[in-house]
Amino acid sequence: MKAAPDNIAVLGAGSWGTAFAKIVADANPAIPIRLWGRREEVVQDINAAHRNQAYLPGIGLPGNISASTDVAEVLAGAALVIIAVPAQSLRPQLAGWRELIAPDAVVVSLMKGLELGTDSRMSQVIAQELTIPAERIAVVSGPNLAMEIAREEPTASVIACSDEEIASWVASLCTAAYFRPYTNTDVVGVEIGGIVKNVIALAVGICEGKEMGDNTKASVITRGLAETTRLALALGGDAETMAGLAGLGDLVATCSSPLSRNHTAGRLLGQGLSLDEVNAKMTQTAEGIKSGRAVYDLARKLGVDMPISAAVVAVLAGKLHVDELGPRLLARELKSEGELGL
Amino acid sequence: MKAAPDNIAVLGAGSWGTAFAKIVADANPAIPIRLWGRREEVVQDINAAHRNQAYLPGIGLPGNISASTDVAEVLAGAALVIIAVPAQSLRPQLAGWRELIAPDAVVVSLMKGLELGTDSRMSQVIAQELTIPAERIAVVSGPNLAMEIAREEPTASVIACSDEEIASWVASLCTAAYFRPYTNTDVVGVEIGGIVKNVIALAVGICEGKEMGDNTKASVITRGLAETTRLALALGGDAETMAGLAGLGDLVATCSSPLSRNHTAGRLLGQGLSLDEVNAKMTQTAEGIKSGRAVYDLARKLGVDMPISAAVVAVLAGKLHVDELGPRLLARELKSEGELGL
Repeated sequence: MKAAPDNIAVLGAGSWGTAFAKIVADANPAIPIRLWGRREEVVQDINAAHRNQAYLPGIGLPGNISASTDVAEVLAGAALVIIAVPAQSLRPQLAGWRELIAPDAVVVSLMKGLELGTDSRMSQVIAQELTIPAERIAVVSGPNLAMEIAREEPTASVIACSDEEIASWVASLCTAAYFRPYTNTDVVGVEIGGIVKNVIALAVGICEGKEMGDNTKASVITRGLAETTRLALALGGDAETMAGLAGLGDLVATCSSPLSRNHTAGRLLGQGLSLDEVNAKMTQTAEGIKSGRAVYDLARKLGVDMPISAAVVAVLAGKLHVDELGPRLLARELKSEGELGL
Repeated sequence: MKAAPDNIAVLGAGSWGTAFAKIVADANPAIPIRLWGRREEVVQDINAAHRNQAYLPGIGLPGNISASTDVAEVLAGAALVIIAVPAQSLRPQLAGWRELIAPDAVVVSLMKGLELGTDSRMSQVIAQELTIPAERIAVVSGPNLAMEIAREEPTASVIACSDEEIASWVASLCTAAYFRPYTNTDVVGVEIGGIVKNVIALAVGICEGKEMGDNTKASVITRGLAETTRLALALGGDAETMAGLAGLGDLVATCSSPLSRNHTAGRLLGQGLSLDEVNAKMTQTAEGIKSGRAVYDLARKLGVDMPISAAVVAVLAGKLHVDELGPRLLARELKSEGELGL
């Protein structure tokens, strides 16, 4: 296996970037973890008080994490670069970072989004912008609510890379007492699971906002995973991945938790708030609101039937009222379950 | 398709039997629905006040439901017989009913349990005791919390029968505005999903009682469905069924809802109550407590690895402390996800 890196860079000091920096810092107490943040006050909070009060309130951070707004300083000599920036801003940011990333670095994406316009997954954007081979790009996904991990609640996750040895190397660098990664070579499946679950979580949140019960929500989750699986298979992913932690596991965690931004955004929509009002209320992006349209476009391009995602996109576009969403999701003629594509 | 029956019998006036009687009564306002109950006061409440305050408080029942403690009266001339009694009491009760059930009646099981000692599914017990062919036995399962259905919240379900026409006939008799059945011929898969989810719900409840987070619960649900699927496949069931409403859907509804008895029983165990204290607190059976042992025995007989069910059975038998359950479920060496059997 590759040697441990001299230092590790984490780009993005939001809740997931910071929580993941804590994982690798706890897993490797002797390795400096350098965290890049855009906002000066967040960086100062991390360096001065070993905390990130804006994104992970109440959580103490290990002493081997330092933060900076200077990305060149953070990336200098980092053999492992972990990226957690908003999905839609990744491509322009990579253009500015390209020359600063070591040519043989392994790049890990924590991001769960599909790029609007190109319908590209985050690992594809990284490959295109950094012109590095797929074997050096890994993705992380699973039932991973950042705040629970920051509180050190036991969590399992999936690390996928087309090169199994690289996946194992990354896994070895982020195994902490409270964080247990499993490896997988199905990058497509792991990414698609992480992307579409945000759209399904919006649908479940809307049902919850409309005070629909657990029977309905469980049906939406079940059919939501079925349409996610159809999309993953059409892109070359594995059905097994979708039945695992990065598919079903992530979907269930996101749809159950009040900590999920997408679930919360859906609930507010269901309660009757407009999309603008919801966006104004959220401190961090609900990625499903942005990726939903890209998911829908990609599914149409591939001829994959995704009725729940389509309904969510219609709600977000103002073309379907939230009152019509629930009935539309359940309103089908009497038919055998197989015809649903389940 | 078969003609509509002159009358329909529902045996068992607990929450699920009564809620299902309400579905068929709403679906067929011109057909008398006769409900058999063991307790005189429940039967009187249904006949006099059109409600079942003991099991479905606050719910009004349709006028075409009548109740009786006389099973012969209820079964007389019923071409459709729907059974919802406690799983472990089914066989002795059937012996007393055998002569009263019309020879060509279709029998529907609403029960979700595995018989202790024989490891038989409910449809098997029915086939054995009534000596009727499998083509006239149907089973119903899905994300179907009885109280939500009684409140007429939109719900989908699966009706399985080896004879697809009989499944469709039953479906046509229980399609209400709020209840949408899908048909399936995988009786084994539908029953196994309904049985094992009660055991997994106990595990999730225990995690919740121990105040573990949604990341952990989602992992237990994911691996729980994986072990349920392994058992169903070993018995000849279909993986598709397990990914559908009767597998994933039912599991998620049961593990999410405070209305689930098995989930509640698990939570009380996790909070430190003894099994006797939990049983004393519950007004209706938490079926997983009884079926758990049968599930474990069946899995061992078939050589199927079911670590979560095994851990739950160990807790119920007093051989594993609830404090050890969570760590045991997540404590595995670093390995690829496929090795988990997911």
